This record gives sequence, C-alpha cells and structure tokens, in this order.
Amino acid sequence: MKRTAAGRARAKVAVPAKAEGRRDGRAPDELRPVAFRRNILAHLPGSVLSAFGRTQVLCTVCVEDGVPDFLRGKGQGWLTAEYGMLPGSTNRRKPRDRAGKVDGRTVEIQRLIGRALRQAVDMSALGERTLWIDCDVLQADGGTRTAAITGAWVALRDAQDRLIRDGKLFKRFVSQQVAAVSVGIVGSRPSLDLDYGEDVAAGTDMNLVMTSRGQFVEIQGTAEHGAFSEKQLHELLRLGRKGLERLFELQRKA
Amino acid sequence: MKRTAAGRARAKVAVPAKAEGRRDGRAPDELRPVAFRRNILAHLPGSVLSAFGRTQVLCTVCVEDGVPDFLRGKGQGWLTAEYGMLPGSTNRRKPRDRAGKVDGRTVEIQRLIGRALRQAVDMSALGERTLWIDCDVLQADGGTRTAAITGAWVALRDAQDRLIRDGKLFKRFVSQQVAAVSVGIVGSRPSLDLDYGEDVAAGTDMNLVMTSRGQFVEIQGTAEHGAFSEKQLHELLRLGRKGLERLFELQRKA
Amino acid sequence: MKRTAAGRARAKVAVPAKAEGRRDGRAPDELRPVAFRRNILAHLPGSVLSAFGRTQVLCTVCVEDGVPDFLRGKGQGWLTAEYGMLPGSTNRRKPRDRAGKVDGRTVEIQRLIGRALRQAVDMSALGERTLWIDCDVLQADGGTRTAAITGAWVALRDAQDRLIRDGKLFKRFVSQQVAAVSVGIVGSRPSLDLDYGEDVAAGTDMNLVMTSRGQFVEIQGTAEHGAFSEKQLHELLRLGRKGLERLFELQRKA
Amino acid sequence: MKRTAAGRARAKVAVPAKAEGRRDGRAPDELRPVAFRRNILAHLPGSVLSAFGRTQVLCTVCVEDGVPDFLRGKGQGWLTAEYGMLPGSTNRRKPRDRAGKVDGRTVEIQRLIGRALRQAVDMSALGERTLWIDCDVLQADGGTRTAAITGAWVALRDAQDRLIRDGKLFKRFVSQQVAAVSVGIVGSRPSLDLDYGEDVAAGTDMNLVMTSRGQFVEIQGTAEHGAFSEKQLHELLRLGRKGLERLFELQRKA
Amino acid sequence: MKRTAAGRARAKVAVPAKAEGRRDGRAPDELRPVAFRRNILAHLPGSVLSAFGRTQVLCTVCVEDGVPDFLRGKGQGWLTAEYGMLPGSTNRRKPRDRAGKVDGRTVEIQRLIGRALRQAVDMSALGERTLWIDCDVLQADGGTRTAAITGAWVALRDAQDRLIRDGKLFKRFVSQQVAAVSVGIVGSRPSLDLDYGEDVAAGTDMNLVMTSRGQFVEIQGTAEHGAFSEKQLHELLRLGRKGLERLFELQRKA
Amino acid sequence: MKRTAAGRARAKVAVPAKAEGRRDGRAPDELRPVAFRRNILAHLPGSVLSAFGRTQVLCTVCVEDGVPDFLRGKGQGWLTAEYGMLPGSTNRRKPRDRAGKVDGRTVEIQRLIGRALRQAVDMSALGERTLWIDCDVLQADGGTRTAAITGAWVALRDAQDRLIRDGKLFKRFVSQQVAAVSVGIVGSRPSLDLDYGEDVAAGTDMNLVMTSRGQFVEIQGTAEHGAFSEKQLHELLRLGRKGLERLFELQRKA
Repeated sequence: MKRTAAGRARAKVAVPAKAEGRRDGRAPDELRPVAFRRNILAHLPGSVLSAFGRTQVLCTVCVEDGVPDFLRGKGQGWLTAEYGMLPGSTNRRKPRDRAGKVDGRTVEIQRLIGRALRQAVDMSALGERTLWIDCDVLQADGGTRTAAITGAWVALRDAQDRLIRDGKLFKRFVSQQVAAVSVGIVGSRPSLDLDYGEDVAAGTDMNLVMTSRGQFVEIQGTAEHGAFSEKQLHELLRLGRKGLERLFELQRKA
Repeated sequence: MKRTAAGRARAKVAVPAKAEGRRDGRAPDELRPVAFRRNILAHLPGSVLSAFGRTQVLCTVCVEDGVPDFLRGKGQGWLTAEYGMLPGSTNRRKPRDRAGKVDGRTVEIQRLIGRALRQAVDMSALGERTLWIDCDVLQADGGTRTAAITGAWVALRDAQDRLIRDGKLFKRFVSQQVAAVSVGIVGSRPSLDLDYGEDVAAGTDMNLVMTSRGQFVEIQGTAEHGAFSEKQLHELLRLGRKGLERLFELQRKA
Repeated sequence: MKRTAAGRARAKVAVPAKAEGRRDGRAPDELRPVAFRRNILAHLPGSVLSAFGRTQVLCTVCVEDGVPDFLRGKGQGWLTAEYGMLPGSTNRRKPRDRAGKVDGRTVEIQRLIGRALRQAVDMSALGERTLWIDCDVLQADGGTRTAAITGAWVALRDAQDRLIRDGKLFKRFVSQQVAAVSVGIVGSRPSLDLDYGEDVAAGTDMNLVMTSRGQFVEIQGTAEHGAFSEKQLHELLRLGRKGLERLFELQRKA
Repeated sequence: MKRTAAGRARAKVAVPAKAEGRRDGRAPDELRPVAFRRNILAHLPGSVLSAFGRTQVLCTVCVEDGVPDFLRGKGQGWLTAEYGMLPGSTNRRKPRDRAGKVDGRTVEIQRLIGRALRQAVDMSALGERTLWIDCDVLQADGGTRTAAITGAWVALRDAQDRLIRDGKLFKRFVSQQVAAVSVGIVGSRPSLDLDYGEDVAAGTDMNLVMTSRGQFVEIQGTAEHGAFSEKQLHELLRLGRKGLERLFELQRKA
Repeated sequence: MKRTAAGRARAKVAVPAKAEGRRDGRAPDELRPVAFRRNILAHLPGSVLSAFGRTQVLCTVCVEDGVPDFLRGKGQGWLTAEYGMLPGSTNRRKPRDRAGKVDGRTVEIQRLIGRALRQAVDMSALGERTLWIDCDVLQADGGTRTAAITGAWVALRDAQDRLIRDGKLFKRFVSQQVAAVSVGIVGSRPSLDLDYGEDVAAGTDMNLVMTSRGQFVEIQGTAEHGAFSEKQLHELLRLGRKGLERLFELQRKA
Repeated sequence: MKRTAAGRARAKVAVPAKAEGRRDGRAPDELRPVAFRRNILAHLPGSVLSAFGRTQVLCTVCVEDGVPDFLRGKGQGWLTAEYGMLPGSTNRRKPRDRAGKVDGRTVEIQRLIGRALRQAVDMSALGERTLWIDCDVLQADGGTRTAAITGAWVALRDAQDRLIRDGKLFKRFVSQQVAAVSVGIVGSRPSLDLDYGEDVAAGTDMNLVMTSRGQFVEIQGTAEHGAFSEKQLHELLRLGRKGLERLFELQRKA
C-alpha cells in the first residue's frame, strides 16, 4: 500500500502521464532537488533533515554502550534502525503504531535501512556500542526509504566526527559511503527517483542501495501490476547508477 | 519521571542554583525565547513548529469527517490530541511506544492537550468533523506540554483560516485563544517557564492553561518533594498569569 | 468520561438542580457520610474498605522486598499504586482492562494516588522495600480517587503498625497524614465532595490532596465546560480545606 | 500452579497432616463454614459475597441487551462469565492481567463458571439478552472456583427476581439449581472442600458441578502427582455428592 | 466451540444418527483407525504424525538446557506443551493466534497435554532440561487433544531412545505409558472416540487420560446440553478404559 | 537472521566449502530434489506439501466470500498469504508468534508470497472472494520462501480445478504460472537454490520470482557481507532463470 503526500498530487493521479514528459518537468534520469540540513538537534551527535523534493525525513543517530546478546563479548559493535511516519506526514492522517502492531511496510523499511547502513560501518572500529538510527518522516511524497538511507549516512558521518572531536571515540568507524535511490517504470518509461504520484502509477518499482565503490548492497524490485523483462531491468539499473553517483557527490558536499 | 534535553544541562543540575539568579540569566517572571514557525508541512491545513527555548514541538492539525460514537448524529464536532516524543528528542534515546503500551506520562499529557484545546473550539460550528491534533517533540528541554498547547492553538487557527479559504468549511470554529505555561518553585524561588534543569530541581511544578479572557481551563500542580502553601500557590498563579498574557500576545502576532 | 453509580442517580441528572440546595440535602460544604472499615482481609498487613456515600473502594497494602531499578542500592524504599474498577461497579458493566490497553483515566488516577501517598512515607525509614497500594472500586458514585487516597492512608498506617508489631519492620515509615477531596462548581454553586450526579453536571471539577500540616500536595482542576475565575478558585480551595480537615479527623479516629 | 491464602496456612504445609484428622478439625466429609451475603452492591440486580471458609468471592450479575454474533436473531439469550483475583487476594501480591495476557488458569476457570451456570438458565425465557457473571476473588484460600459457581447461582436467582419485580423481565429464566464443590485425596485420605493448604498437599484434586436433580454437569479431576484408581474416584464422587446436597440446601436458604 | 474437519462430515450432522449404529459403521466401543508415523522430521529427536481417523496431529519433541525459574537448582527437569491448529486444519479457515490473544480452548488443551505427559516423565532422570512438546493439528476431525497426547507419548519415547543413542543423555526418563481417549453420549448411546460430527451432536463429552497401570491422570467430563447420571459416567469410564487398553498396545507396537 | 535445518548441516558450516564443488555434490546450476505432494488434506480445495531438498512447506488454499474493505463493491477478488514456521521446524526450537509480535522476517516473507501469487490470479475472474494462502514450514533447510511460492502455485491451480469441478466457481482464475528460486554467491561461486548451510555462508543472497513468460515479478538481492557487482548480478540472474525454467516444468508435471 503506498502512502500519500503533498496535497494536490493525488488529484492528478487519475490524469494519465502524457508520453512527452514527467509531471514536474524532470528528465527521466533527473533527481528531485535533494538537500541535507545537518545538526538540527543540538544535543545529538548526528541529526539530518533529508529532503528529496517534498519528502522530508528526520534522521538521527544515538550511541549506546552495549550490543545485542548475540554479539556480546566479541569486541564489535552493531547498528540498528527504526523508521516511522508522523501522523501528519500523509494526506490522510496515519494512526500511530501504538496498538502493539507495527505494520508490515514499516518493518520491511526499517530492516532495509539497517542492513544498508551496516555496510557503511566497520563494526570492530566501533567497539561494543550500538548505533541507533531513527528515521522519522515529517512529510511523505515518495521515496521515504531512499531519503532515509541517504540522509542517515550523512548523520552517521557527522556522528563519527563529533564523537571523535568530543573524545568519546578514537577510531573512525564509517568505512564507505552508502546511498539509495528508487527507479520505476511509469507508463512505459523508466524513470529515476519517483514521487508519490509516479510511484502509485508505476507498474514496476525498484529500490537500489549501493556503495560509492559502485557495488550493490540491495536490489529490491517489485512488479505491482504486470512484470518486467531483463532488458527493462538493465535500463532501470543504468538510471539508478546515475542517480546514485549524483547522491554520493551530494553526500560528500554536505 | 522527567525527561532530558540539550546536552550540557544535565551536568549543572548538581550545582545548586545560586540565590542571585536563574542559570540562564532570566528574571523569575521571564519566558524563554518563544517562536512559532508556521506552515512547515505544505499538505496540511495547519502545522507549526513551536519552540520554547530549546524545546521544539511539531504541532499538526488534520481534519477527518465523522465523530466518535458517543457524538454521532448530534451535529457537532470533536477534537482529539495525541502526543509523542521522537526517539532522538532526549539525551538518552527514548524507545518508541510500539509494544502496545503507551506510558502513563504520555497518556496524561495528550489528555491534557485535548481538554485544553477543546475549550478553544465551537463544536457546533465545526459540524460532524474530528480535528486531530498531533504534537510530536523533536527536542525536549522542559515544558513540552505547554509548548504543545500554545503552538497547537496557532496551528488550529491556521487550519481554520485555510479550510475556509479553500472552501472546505464555511464557519469559523475557533472561539477563543488558549495557551499554557509552567511555573514552579525552584529552590525557594517561584519561577516562570522552567527548563529541564529547573524542572528536575523544582519542589513544586504546576501547569496552567488559560483562555485569553483570563479564566482558567486547567490547573495541575504537583509537589514532587515537600508540599506548597496557599501563599506560594498565589505567587505561582501571578507568575503564570503574566507569562500567559505574553503568550497570548505572541500567538496573535504569529 | 465520567463513570456511573448507584441506580437511580442517573435518572435525576436531567432534573436541573434547584437553586435552593443539593439533591441529597447536604450543605455546600458538607461531606457525604464517610466510613473506613479496617482489616477486612485477614492475610494482609493493611486493608480498608473506604466509603464516601455510596462510593466504595477496597484499599490494600502489600509489601515486597526490593525496589525499582532506578532506586537500587540507595537504601530507600518506594510506593507504587494501582487503581481498578470492578466490572460490576458501574451501572453499565465496565469491561476489564485485559486487552493490554489500560484506559487513560485509570492511568491518571493511579499515578495521582501514588504521588499523593509517597508524600506520606519516609522512604529511608522503609528501607529497600516496595509498598503496593491497590485501590479497587466495588461501587462508583463519584469521588473514587479521593476515597481511594484517603482510605489507602488508613490502610498504610495499619500496615505500618502491624508490620512493626509482627517484628517485620522496626521503624515507623508513615511521616504525615495525607487525604484528598473533590470540589466543583455545580450550576453556579461551589460544592464539596461531589457525587456522580453532581460530577456529571459540574462545569469545573477539582481534586485536592493535602497534608495534615495544611499544605497542598496536588491541585488538579479542570473546566469541563466553560472556565473558572481566580475568585472561584479561592472559594473552591476554601471548601476543600474544610472538607480535608474533617477527613484528617476521621482518619485519626479510624 | 496453586495460589495462596490467609497468612499462617503456609507455614503448616510442611507439617505432615496427621493420620487422625484434618488441620482445622473438620470431618473428611465436612464443608467449611459457607455464607452468602446478598445484595451488597445496591445498583446491580444481583450481587453476592460468597464465602467458603476464608475464601471470599464477589459474584455480580449484569444484564445487557443483545447476544454474541453466533446467536443473533434466534430469540434466545446467553450467559458469559469472567473471573479475576484482586492483587491483594493472595499472600504474595498477584499482578493484574493488564499486559494483554490472561493467564491460563484464569481462562480455564472462567470458562468452567460460564458452562456451569448456562445449565441453570433457560435461554429462550431470557430472550436476546446477555447475562454477565463476574466473580472477583477478594481473599483466596482454596476452592475459589466452587465458591464462585455456587455463589453466582444465588446472585443469578436474585437478579431474576429483582428484574421481574422491577418489570424489566417477565419470565423466570433460572431453570434449576447448580452448585460446585472440590474433593481431593490429601495424604491417602479422600476429603471434601479443600482449603489452600490441603489443595497444595493433595495428590488428586477434583471439581464437581452438579444440578439439584443429582446429575453431573462437569467433572474435572487431575492427578497432580501420582494417579488415582477407579475405586478412589467413586469415593470422591460420594463425598462430593454429600457436600453438594448441603450446598443446594444453603442456596435455598439464602 | 467445536472445530470442524474433513469436508463432507458437516453436511451429515443434520441427518439424525440412526438408533441402529454410528455413521461410520463402528461399534460403540470401537476406535477409529489409529496410526503413528514416526520420525517424519529428520532433525528432531522425536516427531510423530498421529492420526485418529481423519484427525492428524504433528507431535514434535525438542530438548533445551535449563528449566523454568521455579525449578532452578533442584536438579530436575520440566516438560511443557504447546498446541496449535494450522489455519487450513478446519473447514472454515482458522485465523492464526497472532494478535497476542490465544483463545481459551487452546490454553485449556495445551495445559492438559502438559499435565498428562509430565506423568510419563521421571523429572530427576531428565536433569535440568526442558522437554518442549509441540502438537500442531494439520487436519481436525474431533479428538485432536487425545490424538496429541497419545502420539506425543510415542514421540517422547523416540526422543528418549535417540538422545541416549546419540550420547546426549544417559538415563531413561520415560517412566510409564500415558494415553488419552474421548468418550461421549451421542443421542442416548455412550460411544468411544467421537469424530467431529459425533462431538457436535454429543450431549456429554469426556476426555480420559490414563497410565498403562490402569490409573487415571485426568478425567474431564462436560455436559454441553443436559447433564449425566452417575450410571452413565460408569458406562463412559468402561468404554474409555477399553479404548485406552487398545491405544497402549498400539503405542507399544509403534 | 537465518534459521536452521536438518541436524548435521550445522556442524559442516565451519568446514570451508572446497573450491571444487558444493557440499552435496550439486552443480552450481542444479536444483535440489523438488517434489510437490498434492491434496494431502482432504477437506481443502488445494493443499500441497512442497519439498526443496530437506525443506518442507505445507501450502494450503482456503476460499472465503468477501474482500477487504478497499476492494468492496468493485467486483474483483483478492489473495492474501500468511507464512509461519512450526516450532519444531528448526534445530533450535522456534517460539510461536503468540505474543502479538510477529517477527520482521515473517512479515517480509508473507508479503512477498502474497505479491508473487497475486500475479498469477485474474482477480475479476475470481469475483468478490478472498483466497487465503497459508504456507507453514514443517522443516527448514534454506529456501523456505521459494518452496512456499512455487508449491502454493500448484495448490492454487488445484484449488481452481476443484472449485470448478464442484460447481462452486465457474471461471478459471489462474492466469499464468509463477515460481520462485534463490541464488547466491557462496565463497566466490554463484550457486542456485541454496540450502541452509550455503545460505549462512553466502555473501550475497537473492530471491527471484518469475512468470512462465520469462518476466520478473520480484528481485530481492541482499549483500549480507560485502557487496556485489553488476557482472555478478547478471550471472545470478542467468542461474536463476535456468532454475525457474526447470521449476515451471515441475509445476506443470505436478
């Protein structure tokens, strides 16, 4: 089930995307405007407001001593991620996950964020500590999980630098860059970084997580209606790779 | 249990507040810097980031058709509020309320916010609709419930105006201003708008909710240690009234 | 949401309270008949059936070794309270809180009872023990929380005496008397110790907890409809103080 | 797991029951003192405090319009029972069932109470109404389920009479008497109506529910340690039948 | 509430069982075809698919080091059982018990299985280990709890032998045979081993658990409608004893 | 977290897979022995025991009238899937999901199964009915989700045929074949259909779901440690395609 976003998007879903272009005038291989506002919460080592177009995700990093049971005594750290959407983040208010039942989509996304970011961390440099990554969506307009992963990497890097500067850690633990982007087939056109309206209209929708060394960490492609050929897969990977290169650059600038 | 805030505050708690003044140099009857950033989420009728010093609360307003069962068919509306703290809002990460068990403090606060704001709304002008007020704390440094109530009123007013402008409602439903402030006895000194450090040190701590007509909606005073005399109560009410007059003014400016 | 009580009360709510007096003929500053039946459960150190008019609350005291984590090793004790209503305590059967979701009103009340009675206990005299206060409502006719606090104090005092007599404790841990009463504005008349019918009709409703030294421990006033002036507040405090003095006397007699 | 009761009972468990008699001097086929205090809650049609020795169970009857889904439209009623133990009912405080997990023993007991009392009710005379039977244990000293069933029958009969007297029902729905008693083999001696100390010491323990026409409704026998022969079974049934005849008489007197 | 089974059974429930015999042609004292398929899961010490007619229950045995808290340090073991029905085991799909609420019938059955099988185990020979018995119903056609107990005993015996053969345990811990069977009064005819159709039609229904030494471990008889006399009880016990003797024989053969 | 399987597998994990071949002698592009035992539960329209090597999954199909709310009145059907592992399916007993908290891996897998099989169904031919697919793992040795999807398709096809044969449905609703297989990089060797030992050792692990027309429905690839290049991705897709062609053939044979 897709979740909704900034107001007027919805009405246009019914209007079939014309062959000549994307609703917001972007080229098929163009990202939405991306921004990382750093250190917005003064008391945390890392906090970034990550924006992909109208999608806004607050990514925070907390450090706790200790690791889960299965790692205890091995001298290495752990990273765990949680994802949430604020009730007001969607057009139709989203009830809180308080009934003791976290919905399946949330579970999937936070597991993905965790796996992705663990690839960026040298767990033995971290020592027996746990990094908690919280990604809370303030406004949802498609691509919340990719904005979360890409922004959380920036917060993670900030956290590393601040913890070392404050003398709380001595080793650099961020081993490589990790970023994520979505691609999809909207109408018959492969497109990069779908917004909510495109996401709803897409037949196939794929999330790619990659390292800055050009290797995949995750590929998750789903044909919501219809199915996709191997040729289309290659075109989607090409678009994704292009977007990810741009995101790595933006992360470094931030 | 009090919750924590921006980093260095904690260390100073042990240092006894000197007789000559407050830690941050404020006069006993002085508010922290207060700001309301309006319309920060484009797709909602009302959304305000309410700041009392370092405390930051995102207040959003959603409107849904329909009312709870006990009101159905009476032609009048309802307002309900929820309160949450993001995991990264405190010094020590606060686990999410996902286990199906919302903690008692959260329940108390969201019931208070709801009761307070229902005093600001003319339910028959609203018709059979429910206003959902969500107050999510991004950063906690004392006074989150008062920042929530006072900021949510601004969001409520914005929501009214936008819904009327967009032709979705025809009647003004905000009937009067409502604001809230905390007061307390820190050391032996009655003080206005306690920050987290003062709150922890306070013997008595009181939240006041008032209308702009100068009448009380709620008085909730608790002696955490010791107890307070009727004379001290009067002094706290005087400080509170002064702070509230200033807040009504700031709401009107916003 | 107010809860209901002895049968015929409800029908009369519709009948407007006449200006000349209270439904049950009490003066505005008169308590309902109050009784404390002590030691009704033989196996506990303290157990009191507290009655304020038709409201009946069973208050029990259990002692357990050990304290919550945040107090461990400090050599002092703790007191925690739980509140419940039996399914048959109200006119309309109240379902049990078994779904893992305790309602907000219950949470608020049991937190209030706990805070109030902690003011009556010298925690270092108690040592590393936890006092469990359970207040279970057998019949509800308004004022269940005040009957609970006032009666639980009697049970607490009995528990202290019996534990010392049985050689299980050596120090007196009850440091002062604590009692509670409700006041409210019914019609335009400030009144003491509201029954359920009055409570439903009241515009403002306030619970006061006080020590026998005449100082406040809690003030919780809520305007359910309308709001109240500072002058009305003073009148309510005066009535409350009068009722509390009478309750302290009754506690001592018991 | 057995639950405990009045204080000193426990210490004596270690003392082996002498061959010549029961701890409290009763004959093997003798009930504890049984009492039914009727109409203790004024606002309910039926409420009985049922005591078997030190065991005290509050049994209440509420009537609601409507029946569960599987019966709707069939013109007949339903009876459902719930059982609970107050936290202070046992020597060691019993935590409330609020975590959303009702323990297995409670589930078993309340299903037994419901099945037993449904045998006493003519569901078509009741019409589409649900009788809620709540049995809450104030003090537990063995045999809480049998005190609950036997006492709840008295409350049910009172409820029938009052509802007819008040003109709310027109047909008598209580079709026959139902009562319950426990029997067990303590040491090698078959005994009637075990108290908590005997129950803990018993190798076999059986609950019998019977109608006043001398037929069984339920037989639930469990060998906690060891097993029992068919001959022992017959002796237990004989003792049980004797106790039940006495209970039917006491119900009629009440 | 009874649960259903193989497709066509249901339709026939409406056809009144003729006086001259059982629907499937069995004699009143005849079991359905019983089979125990052993070791169907290679990685477990004991796993048996137990079939009583169309009823199929998978019984598995796992061994874990350690015991529940109340047994720790006493040098003896424990056995605990869980029971479940797969969603497809009944005619009408049975939702999974995932909402945190296990239904009462399930709780009752798994407690019965546990108690029954604990009688078959010498806990001190087992040492501080816990045997987990899981009984999962693949197809339900009446008598799932008796198929579970009887088949689980075979799995338990297999587990003992394999653990000793693999050198993981050194002492035999299965002390005696335990089996279970149902009996009931269908129409007015006492019958052995009821299938689902008979179970639904039965006025009285009883489960018997016995040891191979001819002594009872459990008797659970319930009159769903009507009640039963002592004479009928004796006839049911006679039938049950006959069925159990045959089951002990089949267990030994398996 | 990977889950375990048939006993001896585990010990061998430590033995590094030799360069020359797979532990069980399979070629890199060879499936394990695959079998579909059909109609194993007589009362359901479709039930298949799907085996991929030692992995055994029971796949059942139930049909219910009605659809979820969001589809009501649109004249089309729905398919929903649930996945579970029996407690005895793994080497170390897996506790049941009864605490109201289904683990994240389970949620992910059942969502995948549902999406995959919805591609096989013509929802308008189905009409307003819901197909419930339950996949319960009896024994887990890697690839449980692929055995579930592939076997459930066979059960779905059986269900269609039986429902039409029984006159309960009139239109064929299975529109195309769907199957799934896993591939991974074990050591540096791309391999098809990993067993549990290989899965634990794999750096990258991917699940492919495809239609018999050669198009992808899902690609889910995860680098557990390290990352994978686009070239490796192509090799994995080639292996997967080969395995899937074989599975489509086996489904048709079944």
